[in-house]
Amino acid sequence: MNKISMEELVNYAKNYGFVFQGSEIYGGLANTWDYGPLGVLLKNNIKQSWWKKFIQEGNLNVGLDSSILLNPKVWEASGHVGGFSDPLTDCKQCNTRHRADKLIEEHTQGAVNADGWSNDKMMQYIIDEHIVCPNCGALSYTDIRQFNLMFKTSQGVTTDSTSDIYLRPETAQGIFLNFKHIQRTSRKKVPFGIGQIGKSFRNEITPGNFIFRTREFEQMELEFFCKPGTELEWFDYWKNTSHQFLLSLGLRDQDIRLRDHLPEQLSHYSNATTDIEFQFPWGFDELWGIASRTDYDLKQHQEYSSQNLEYLDPITNEKYLPYVIEPSLGVERLFLAILSSAYQEETLDNGETRINLQLAPHLAPYQVAVLPLIKKYHKEAAEDMLDYLSNEWMVTYDESGKIGRRYRRQDAIGTPFVVTVDDDSINNKTFTVRHRDSMEQVTLTKEELIPYLREQLKY
Amino acid sequence: MNKISMEELVNYAKNYGFVFQGSEIYGGLANTWDYGPLGVLLKNNIKQSWWKKFIQEGNLNVGLDSSILLNPKVWEASGHVGGFSDPLTDCKQCNTRHRADKLIEEHTQGAVNADGWSNDKMMQYIIDEHIVCPNCGALSYTDIRQFNLMFKTSQGVTTDSTSDIYLRPETAQGIFLNFKHIQRTSRKKVPFGIGQIGKSFRNEITPGNFIFRTREFEQMELEFFCKPGTELEWFDYWKNTSHQFLLSLGLRDQDIRLRDHLPEQLSHYSNATTDIEFQFPWGFDELWGIASRTDYDLKQHQEYSSQNLEYLDPITNEKYLPYVIEPSLGVERLFLAILSSAYQEETLDNGETRINLQLAPHLAPYQVAVLPLIKKYHKEAAEDMLDYLSNEWMVTYDESGKIGRRYRRQDAIGTPFVVTVDDDSINNKTFTVRHRDSMEQVTLTKEELIPYLREQLKY
Repeated sequence: MNKISMEELVNYAKNYGFVFQGSEIYGGLANTWDYGPLGVLLKNNIKQSWWKKFIQEGNLNVGLDSSILLNPKVWEASGHVGGFSDPLTDCKQCNTRHRADKLIEEHTQGAVNADGWSNDKMMQYIIDEHIVCPNCGALSYTDIRQFNLMFKTSQGVTTDSTSDIYLRPETAQGIFLNFKHIQRTSRKKVPFGIGQIGKSFRNEITPGNFIFRTREFEQMELEFFCKPGTELEWFDYWKNTSHQFLLSLGLRDQDIRLRDHLPEQLSHYSNATTDIEFQFPWGFDELWGIASRTDYDLKQHQEYSSQNLEYLDPITNEKYLPYVIEPSLGVERLFLAILSSAYQEETLDNGETRINLQLAPHLAPYQVAVLPLIKKYHKEAAEDMLDYLSNEWMVTYDESGKIGRRYRRQDAIGTPFVVTVDDDSINNKTFTVRHRDSMEQVTLTKEELIPYLREQLKY
Repeated sequence: MNKISMEELVNYAKNYGFVFQGSEIYGGLANTWDYGPLGVLLKNNIKQSWWKKFIQEGNLNVGLDSSILLNPKVWEASGHVGGFSDPLTDCKQCNTRHRADKLIEEHTQGAVNADGWSNDKMMQYIIDEHIVCPNCGALSYTDIRQFNLMFKTSQGVTTDSTSDIYLRPETAQGIFLNFKHIQRTSRKKVPFGIGQIGKSFRNEITPGNFIFRTREFEQMELEFFCKPGTELEWFDYWKNTSHQFLLSLGLRDQDIRLRDHLPEQLSHYSNATTDIEFQFPWGFDELWGIASRTDYDLKQHQEYSSQNLEYLDPITNEKYLPYVIEPSLGVERLFLAILSSAYQEETLDNGETRINLQLAPHLAPYQVAVLPLIKKYHKEAAEDMLDYLSNEWMVTYDESGKIGRRYRRQDAIGTPFVVTVDDDSINNKTFTVRHRDSMEQVTLTKEELIPYLREQLKY
């Protein structure tokens, strides 16, 4: 299986209407991307799959949609105002910009985590270990300075009422703020979780790799609240659930790697963290972070807000701050993993080649395509079929060109089922359903069609 | 039918987990709201209903998800840098802040539209017509000044590479920028539309009325491209489709009013505009704006970007800039319309009262509730039923308290169907399904249950 290169993937995504460069007619805006007619459907299906497995099923979790703009005190409490910054240094020889912590991590192949180190300590380490500029080989850096990653803006109308606020760099804090409200109104008992999907913004120093690291991105975050002492069991539970979720989306297990952080790599508030890494076109890189965060966040908010955020156990009457497990996943990264993993070029028995986008059926932008075999004779019946199926699924319609070419187009965008309308459809009310991967066809009546497709598209 | 007051609605929304004040534990952040476990479900169902009717069905339109951060030149071309501002004036006597154009519009009950008037012209009109401060009755205002409504931020790391950018005040421009890409990759022929759902931001001078006017909000916008000369037919088509959509969500026709703009009320680029107004708790107010925008937007972008944005008709070989119809709707406003319209307090035959949230079944946060009649005996079978139904719908489960009280709770959050698990469920595999509005019950086997609910929940 040849992995598609990034360049091929970016071109494919553009040409088929998955992902366009943002603001392209104006020369773009660095590192922004728009999701076209197919991209938005794939993205929606990814989000709905996460919602289904993490919120809808299982009865453990509830959902939330909190706002992007928050009271600035939130970011003091969470540590983002003081600490959510990257250590920046420039190579004096070639002017390339680097993150000092990444220089160290890459040099040591992940064995050393410089989180929480002072600027001086990092520079000393770089000099001692002779970590040269990856671009030009020089060992000559400017002093490290901390660069805060939050986007700042201001709201309000007059000078005296205007206040600086930030675009949230993560959706997680909105969950912590609402913990008590949600626990009370949903009458959930610990352990339970709160999940949400939403946009976040980080003024990244080194964005890049297409949609892998962007300044505007969408997160699917779960904060799972449990009793102190049980957190490592729940940590394993969510690590396993997350792994299974990726497999259920059709990702191959050999492309997935779970990397447990070593004790010296853990953030100060965490007693266990695992990165789920995926083999992207450039190699393994972080897809999903799962962290056991103790009661750090609730404790910080309790202190800064002077509100009691403790949970009262209705059985034992104990009061405590729950511990938290956080599986946090980016929509765009998962999109990239799925798209790059699904893309296949195949040589058929007749010597032709086809692009086959082997998406899990429920993720495909269009679940079904309806094609009239011959436009002149079968268009009307095909349009009826389109209407009939469109109430249930995203269905596309294509009447132009030879049937073989139209199959190829649907294969290339991952449509798992093609319903062809021909003379038999009109005379005998039967329709052929072609499977994308096997290219096999079955013949069904109109009444059989919806139950058949439902079964095939079940998730 | 008594309309619920705003105060009652805000309390109801908070107590049941629909809408919480944003950042509340820190004293809030003016005019931000978080959607709790029930609110996020209702919001998602509203968005999915729009997507289904405007994108999925009908085969006219395709979707898009463009970024919030755009090249700043976009806002020069669109007129937002120069013109997207409100005319601000303060009452010198009581210091209340007003929008000068709104003072005029309210004074003339909508007969005069001050869009495009100079500051001097507005102030002269206010003085001539003796439009006093609605708060204190004085006629003594500060000079009018223009206040731009776009939120500004900056991206990039160093001073020289940093650039001021704006949070989009509407999703529409992202559609215009991608018009050519989408037309080409989707092989759509004019007439066709591009729709998207996404967040927008406006630094409103007078936000308020709960979630009616907020600085951060979500839009459902369609830009429909058609041949010049056909735009008024399409305008009528989308006006009618939008109206029907509202009715399909269960809004009552007597609460809906279509207000066509008079020629003197039209924006300079528009040749027809209609506001769909809804009777909110405080009276009729704008819910949905539908505008025929001619080729204004594409023309502006063509000029500013120096790109050819014309459409080539494949049949006639004509080249032209399509005209555009824009139905633009806010998710939160529709949420507020639906919630306030659905809320009912009823007196039952036995003299008890109940809250009945009469949502259209497919919009309800939970489509189904599963209740064991007696926890001790029926819990296990009820949990099996919960799992069984959760693959298809959002299902809630409640085992605590008397069955009547549990029905009341489900009525109050709009759950249209309650499945009760009792001895017959265990012995005969039958289940009772209770309807929210009629409170009638039917008995069904497990096999009958899913087809029955599917039919009832069809949209």
